[in-house]
Amino acid sequence: MPDWQEISGGVTAPKGYQAAGITAGLKPSGLPDLALILSDVEAIAAGVFTTSQVRAACVDYCRQRLQTKHYARAILCNAGQANAATGEQGVLDAQESAQLLAGELNIPVESILLASTGVIGQRIKMSAMRTGIPKLVAALSQTGSDAAAQSIITTDLVPKSIALETTIGDRPVRLGGIAKGSGMIHPNMATMLAFVTTDAAVSPHLWQEMLSRAADRSFNSITVDGDTSTNDCLIALANGQSRTPAITEMGQDAEKLEAMLTAVCQHLAKAIARDGEGATCLVEVQVTGAHDEEAARQVAKTIVGSSLVKSAIFGRDPNWGRIAGAAGRAGVKFDQENLRIQLGDLLLMENGQPLEFDRAAASGYLQQAAAGAYMKEDTVLISVSIGNGHGSATAWGCDLSYEYVKINAEYTT
Amino acid sequence: MPDWQEISGGVTAPKGYQAAGITAGLKPSGLPDLALILSDVEAIAAGVFTTSQVRAACVDYCRQRLQTKHYARAILCNAGQANAATGEQGVLDAQESAQLLAGELNIPVESILLASTGVIGQRIKMSAMRTGIPKLVAALSQTGSDAAAQSIITTDLVPKSIALETTIGDRPVRLGGIAKGSGMIHPNMATMLAFVTTDAAVSPHLWQEMLSRAADRSFNSITVDGDTSTNDCLIALANGQSRTPAITEMGQDAEKLEAMLTAVCQHLAKAIARDGEGATCLVEVQVTGAHDEEAARQVAKTIVGSSLVKSAIFGRDPNWGRIAGAAGRAGVKFDQENLRIQLGDLLLMENGQPLEFDRAAASGYLQQAAAGAYMKEDTVLISVSIGNGHGSATAWGCDLSYEYVKINAEYTT
Repeated sequence: MPDWQEISGGVTAPKGYQAAGITAGLKPSGLPDLALILSDVEAIAAGVFTTSQVRAACVDYCRQRLQTKHYARAILCNAGQANAATGEQGVLDAQESAQLLAGELNIPVESILLASTGVIGQRIKMSAMRTGIPKLVAALSQTGSDAAAQSIITTDLVPKSIALETTIGDRPVRLGGIAKGSGMIHPNMATMLAFVTTDAAVSPHLWQEMLSRAADRSFNSITVDGDTSTNDCLIALANGQSRTPAITEMGQDAEKLEAMLTAVCQHLAKAIARDGEGATCLVEVQVTGAHDEEAARQVAKTIVGSSLVKSAIFGRDPNWGRIAGAAGRAGVKFDQENLRIQLGDLLLMENGQPLEFDRAAASGYLQQAAAGAYMKEDTVLISVSIGNGHGSATAWGCDLSYEYVKINAEYTT
Repeated sequence: MPDWQEISGGVTAPKGYQAAGITAGLKPSGLPDLALILSDVEAIAAGVFTTSQVRAACVDYCRQRLQTKHYARAILCNAGQANAATGEQGVLDAQESAQLLAGELNIPVESILLASTGVIGQRIKMSAMRTGIPKLVAALSQTGSDAAAQSIITTDLVPKSIALETTIGDRPVRLGGIAKGSGMIHPNMATMLAFVTTDAAVSPHLWQEMLSRAADRSFNSITVDGDTSTNDCLIALANGQSRTPAITEMGQDAEKLEAMLTAVCQHLAKAIARDGEGATCLVEVQVTGAHDEEAARQVAKTIVGSSLVKSAIFGRDPNWGRIAGAAGRAGVKFDQENLRIQLGDLLLMENGQPLEFDRAAASGYLQQAAAGAYMKEDTVLISVSIGNGHGSATAWGCDLSYEYVKINAEYTT
């Protein structure tokens, strides 16, 4: 049983945070497009960023900032223009955005982190940014998380938010997060953003370590279509306002905080996968018996990312051969005689050989689980064992539907 | 200008080869399903096989055979059952098939290589094999290549065949090939097979080296959906019947032979990509300026394999941002300020920044090139430069259409 409970409030659930989201006029649609998360005091800041060689200005900005200073107070996020592939001018626009906000909040510019999402190759509409920032600051509130969550999405069907509470040293500690997924209805949009806040007190090095591990077990374990964005970023703030003992090394309290951080990241990651373009269900692949966790994750991600497996799930076809095929090409060595594949509770393959299974029952499971997954109550569960090792990992994705192709082919007629 | 001319005859164009293809009753459809290629004399044999951990019995059989003996006379290929994930019985079935053919041809069993394609998890129908093999041998002919090409396909729309002729030491040397693609209409089918013959005289080590390089520049540079098969194999025979001087080291003659081998493999590989499931056009991605050829290939394959890029091409949308995004996540380091992207003759991006280009013209190019590609007269050409290095490579693929999803979702209604 997890050692925490779900609460409301998103990123403003932890003590000492405010947030806001407004329509600044960046999106052509007129929907909310500018968000701010502010900590009352300097917070420990950690980040995980896209590994792409083609990056937005905000990604390089944050990465450089966090290399020299592990603290921040504010995260400013615009939606509508990705400010990627915008060259030197894009860098200047990012810097000006930070300076405008620093002036309005009367804090050092170094305390500000930036994120952008939207069309690649488009600069941020700076006139809208200049008039928007004062309004954004004026809108800050301790219940502003939902407005912020609404303002960072682009083509997501729903905003994504979660908050959890546990106790450390008999005092409540809270951790919340918001995210946007890779909804790519419009050209060039492909970004995953997530922002996490906590009022726990934790040392910078440990917080970054925890965040990197949590990212591997959540955002780095989902795939919608295998396309990494120029703007992907996960930023986590820890401001210590819970007044709980500072966590400076691994131990019981640290494990509790990391488990809660991982749970928040996994919730948001699964919400992104479920909201994948054209997806009709959430797919979870659990791999066990690998040499280590990394090998298990590699196999799980290859299976959940296989177009053939995804198409079969869309067709509610219990196609174990495609699952075996994807496992085999994952780049992880294993003996095919140890391969075992299960769909829900149904064993389809054991010792590397297919079993006589009830095809109708297996197809029925897929129909039922997919229907449940659509209702957000269930997932299509694929369990794969590749040997006797202790490495295990889980990856999440969605099926591949006509709708995905339709969305991304962007018929102009 | 290439140093050769195209001729007819496929794998029986070179001297000293016969081939056959018959309906043995392996496929439920009643279409031709058993093929044989026979060299009059022992031929140097080289092979490239799937890297998957889940492999068909024939793959392990051939790999082991070629490790101990670099010669072969015959390639036997069945379509209908993949004989993958069939355990020890699958190995016995493969061995029995080879023995049956060896008896019928009155040659040593060690002179026979095997390939299978079809449904994973299904054993070869041995009763059909037993009655089929004598008929197959009886059907052997010096013009049997087309029948063989027809018998190895599963869900391909068209058989794939090519032959070229050049001169070495003033005498004609011929090289031919047949292939099947990854048509996966039925569950669990996902195999690429290619067989090449030549009458050149070449040493075993050199022939294997040439084949490996040619495979990297052709079959390993195409992608339909990124799914590697359990049964993929490329086998090449060189029987020396041209009576031309033996090629034992790299030099002018060797380069001529390798260039012709690469051209045959590229022709077959492009035919497979063009015939990809649901594809409406062939896409060619040329990458230059990389550190080395391998890095360039990695970027080219990532772009041509991106679901977002493939969907955009299906929608005839000149979406340079998705091309830049895919290049960036290919796992190859480059400076984004050096990125240059061209669609046909139209420059879309230079120095890492988008240019003002004529969107209608770019979309028009896509429409025209795709229409031409469908007629097999043209390709959609994407050229990408990532720096000043000398590494270049080309990869081929196809677009992602509704039809792909439909084929692979396998609606039972």
